[in-house]
Amino acid sequence: MARIAVTDGMSAKAVEMLENAGHEVVLRHYDPDEISSGSLAGFDAVVIRSATKLPAEQISASVSSNGGIRFIGRAGVGVDNIDISEATLRGIVVCNTPGASTRSVVEMTMGHLIASTRNIATADRTLRNGVWAKKQLRGSEIGGKRLGLIGFGRIARGVAQAARSFGMVVHAYDPFVENAIEGITMHDSVDEIFSNCTHISVHCNLTNETRNLVNTERISTMPGIGADGIDCGNHIVSCARGGIVDEDAAHQALESGQLRSLALDVFESEPLGPSPLLNHDSFHGSPHIAASTLEAQARIGIEMASLLIEFFDSGKTSTSLNF
Amino acid sequence: MARIAVTDGMSAKAVEMLENAGHEVVLRHYDPDEISSGSLAGFDAVVIRSATKLPAEQISASVSSNGGIRFIGRAGVGVDNIDISEATLRGIVVCNTPGASTRSVVEMTMGHLIASTRNIATADRTLRNGVWAKKQLRGSEIGGKRLGLIGFGRIARGVAQAARSFGMVVHAYDPFVENAIEGITMHDSVDEIFSNCTHISVHCNLTNETRNLVNTERISTMPGIGADGIDCGNHIVSCARGGIVDEDAAHQALESGQLRSLALDVFESEPLGPSPLLNHDSFHGSPHIAASTLEAQARIGIEMASLLIEFFDSGKTSTSLNF
Repeated sequence: MARIAVTDGMSAKAVEMLENAGHEVVLRHYDPDEISSGSLAGFDAVVIRSATKLPAEQISASVSSNGGIRFIGRAGVGVDNIDISEATLRGIVVCNTPGASTRSVVEMTMGHLIASTRNIATADRTLRNGVWAKKQLRGSEIGGKRLGLIGFGRIARGVAQAARSFGMVVHAYDPFVENAIEGITMHDSVDEIFSNCTHISVHCNLTNETRNLVNTERISTMPGIGADGIDCGNHIVSCARGGIVDEDAAHQALESGQLRSLALDVFESEPLGPSPLLNHDSFHGSPHIAASTLEAQARIGIEMASLLIEFFDSGKTSTSLNF
Repeated sequence: MARIAVTDGMSAKAVEMLENAGHEVVLRHYDPDEISSGSLAGFDAVVIRSATKLPAEQISASVSSNGGIRFIGRAGVGVDNIDISEATLRGIVVCNTPGASTRSVVEMTMGHLIASTRNIATADRTLRNGVWAKKQLRGSEIGGKRLGLIGFGRIARGVAQAARSFGMVVHAYDPFVENAIEGITMHDSVDEIFSNCTHISVHCNLTNETRNLVNTERISTMPGIGADGIDCGNHIVSCARGGIVDEDAAHQALESGQLRSLALDVFESEPLGPSPLLNHDSFHGSPHIAASTLEAQARIGIEMASLLIEFFDSGKTSTSLNF
């Protein structure tokens, strides 16, 4: 019987699973100040999404001499809001649910890619403003073009499969993938993705190495002319993590025309404040919703509830990020 | 050596092909009044897109006792702007370029489908307005859902292939297709598409039979709950022809919630004037641009130039709509 704090929400079905297993679930958001002053130390586990941040000081405030949290669950994928080293030092197991949102992010990436190349948001906006901009909104096809994937994990592989069904030629770079993959041209450097591909989608984690990876210099090497000889321009999509695309550099490239479209679901600073991107017609944005579907929520909750039940039954989990 | 009027534009490469073959190309739009008063009768052929209308009286005004047009080329697919019976009576060959824009329309259909289910245009609009609407914009996946295709020609088949790559289960109705198609559930009536499918895409021609085919009664039978048990709501997309979706009925269904999204690239009246759809957050619109890509334009122009060269060389074409 554990006390579990769920700070950023959880599906009713998952809460029911936990309660049926005898656990107490407290659904309530805690502000950073509350966590710093030890509000989570009365719990055995905490489940967060992206809104709650757990840097080292928040983690140390959540353990106490007679207990505190032994499990941090990240309902979702990205764990850049958790200091995993600190958790490991204190013997706290950290788990996420990487598979649950894969399909949602794949769909959103393809949706943003087509919305960008076909001006779907601009079309809707001008139509609502009473302008029939048929002639100004000519787009380009994705079929026959080269799509470069930066990172080639679970989501990127799903995007590769979908993109190939549209006739795209897929190139990828991932320093952690060594094997050749049938039908995909793997590259040895990220620079080769930029110099070969008119369309690029970002699928890596945010690390010191990947911060501002999409920068002015690299964007300037994108070819602009499609593998099929069409003047389709260059297009970048990111549903990964904010900070990998240098937003100032991307905005300058939109202004100069070196980028014909940019679609971002993630931003260096979220919620996004005033940004010159928001006034550019060739920018398409969404507020970090690539994983935000009914289906992913259902899968995430059930996967996380199962991990918690396993952990409090057996003291360990079949998959964790640090033990 | 023929004189060819091109009234709605043509790619430079196609014009060059025609000129190199010795033909004279006049690129100029003609108003209905001009056509009625015989402005096209001095040409041997006319090439139009959707902007120029050729009803019976315009066609009869374009032939004269000593000649006039012998060939009407529709650069694109839909020929509801040409009175083909009248053309046939007067011995005028009518040709279109149905294959050239297939890929563009397939991509746009999938783009609109994902943009609708994932609120991409609304996301962009709210973001530009300074609102971080992350929580309000939860969408649903298309994977695992039933997609119903009304009409199962070239474009619908392309959509079926793309949709299946996302894990959709495809149902289709087409009274002109008799053979079973592997992996697709074919139905005997259009009503069965509505009662089985949460997602519907329209791919038929506009005829007396298909006008207002998507109506209140049929929309009311859509299941709302996905084949995977998820409360995804009902979604309709049309990049076919205006008038097949009853816009008033669809608006009422958006208001009642029976439709969770509606994406239209085509409208009963174009350019679209004031419409209650434009004030509905769950509507996504575009100004008839599904075939409007650099690639389709290039293919259409070249295909049409080839047909014209063949016709004026040999007096006939390998494919025509009426001879």
